[in-house]
Amino acid sequence: MTAGPRMRVLRSPEAVRRQVRAWRAAGERTAFVPTMGYLHDGHLSLVRRARRNADRVAASIFVNPAQFGPREDFGAYPRDLPRDLGLLRSEGVDLCFVPATGRMYPPGHRTEVHVTGLEDVLEGASRPGHFGGVALVVLKLLHVVEPDVLVLGQKDAQQAVILERMIADLDLAVRVARGPIVREPDGLAMSSRNVYLSPEERRAAPVLRRSLVRVERAARNGERSAARLLKLVRDEFAREPRARLDTVAVVDAASLEPLKRLRGRVLVPVAARLGRTRLIDNVEFTVEEDGR
Amino acid sequence: MTAGPRMRVLRSPEAVRRQVRAWRAAGERTAFVPTMGYLHDGHLSLVRRARRNADRVAASIFVNPAQFGPREDFGAYPRDLPRDLGLLRSEGVDLCFVPATGRMYPPGHRTEVHVTGLEDVLEGASRPGHFGGVALVVLKLLHVVEPDVLVLGQKDAQQAVILERMIADLDLAVRVARGPIVREPDGLAMSSRNVYLSPEERRAAPVLRRSLVRVERAARNGERSAARLLKLVRDEFAREPRARLDTVAVVDAASLEPLKRLRGRVLVPVAARLGRTRLIDNVEFTVEEDGR
Repeated sequence: MTAGPRMRVLRSPEAVRRQVRAWRAAGERTAFVPTMGYLHDGHLSLVRRARRNADRVAASIFVNPAQFGPREDFGAYPRDLPRDLGLLRSEGVDLCFVPATGRMYPPGHRTEVHVTGLEDVLEGASRPGHFGGVALVVLKLLHVVEPDVLVLGQKDAQQAVILERMIADLDLAVRVARGPIVREPDGLAMSSRNVYLSPEERRAAPVLRRSLVRVERAARNGERSAARLLKLVRDEFAREPRARLDTVAVVDAASLEPLKRLRGRVLVPVAARLGRTRLIDNVEFTVEEDGR
Repeated sequence: MTAGPRMRVLRSPEAVRRQVRAWRAAGERTAFVPTMGYLHDGHLSLVRRARRNADRVAASIFVNPAQFGPREDFGAYPRDLPRDLGLLRSEGVDLCFVPATGRMYPPGHRTEVHVTGLEDVLEGASRPGHFGGVALVVLKLLHVVEPDVLVLGQKDAQQAVILERMIADLDLAVRVARGPIVREPDGLAMSSRNVYLSPEERRAAPVLRRSLVRVERAARNGERSAARLLKLVRDEFAREPRARLDTVAVVDAASLEPLKRLRGRVLVPVAARLGRTRLIDNVEFTVEEDGR
């Protein structure tokens, strides 16, 4: 790991805004990668994508309390700031915003953002308040950083849909770029939560990806029934008793509305529990019109 | 009325953003005055305040459907765009944003903003959804215009409190300046809705101001009981049968929480009906500690 000399680590919103505005005044475009830290190759692939999309890369590390439910793992969420900063430096990130929780949510904070209809379905149905908290913190971060490009990961597809909708609805001047899911050699999507898995759970975890590969293959071979695709996923999970399928759906990739027959851009998200750890994955593909 | 040659009337958000960013790149600061049109001297006083606060003045004219309730006067709200543009030109406004409703709220728009606790009290209790709609449109307009200064009128004091809170909570890089209430010679606060008043209602309308003058005078003379101030207002309205007092309160000017005894910065908003027209007014003052 070669540590670049130049990354600025800033805790003050004003200092971040000043720096990005100085870049803009000099004709440089900034891409922004928000993270909750505990970085893995998935995050770093987003940083590399940011580099390709702009002259400057800003990242943030902030474990956002507003997106954790009361029974979720905010306190226990894994953190390793020195390691994270080293990784970002080695990827040539120019600026990393690391705000204190009390600076982002001071006493008296009472503003909420809601992307109605999209935030309460799928993952949102299992995690009330989660996507409202995500929308809020990303809106705040966009106001601090004022980037030209926001880079989001496809792994959190519903999050990306919600944030894209929010950005369009609120007339924000930022373009969104989505980076693809990065996987371990056995297919498990990279996630900060993978560290929670016991060795046995870790061996079972690729079932999420396997079920989605079957879905994608079936669709490519002409299957257009959502019910039959859902059955493929359930069958795959039935063969892996250490994993418990939590939710699976076949939805329109923009409206998140359930499809009966596949058409257009299709998203198939799955969520499953391995022990006490909840993992998510998804596949997104376009179905050609087939006249049926 | 001298028509300045330079005001740009723009319907496209992109064109507005481009212009304000060009000003910023040239080192010029922009102050922004959002309006719903049908301008009166109250609006124009805000424009003059904007001029004093910045190098450039941007205004907007947009009757925002999101802030009207289903039984309110969106369709009938008074409009006179040619006259409004003439007035803004004569005040030396540099840019006026006049978006189409369908551009601000295209099909599929589903994002909401809420300033919880502040938006549901006082005027918000009488007008469910109103302040959420105000917060939403102002946030959108701020994203389009990206001003350095936002100029708001004290006449809509609760609106100003809510927007200041939203701007702080969302880390927006805009300073808020409040302009004082502008009045007719008999004390009636200027409002686009004053045109709805019949001659008789118009003669009765100064009762709002008269009641607030009594409140302010009593507080200056040492009255610290909110209940006794409220009684002064009710008594004043009792003498004017053509006006019906709708709401009156004595609240903290920042939290909008009701006060029993006056302390610190105090806001006294009143709302009253004259026939079918609802008018508002308020007084805000600071109470010195008096040891009681």
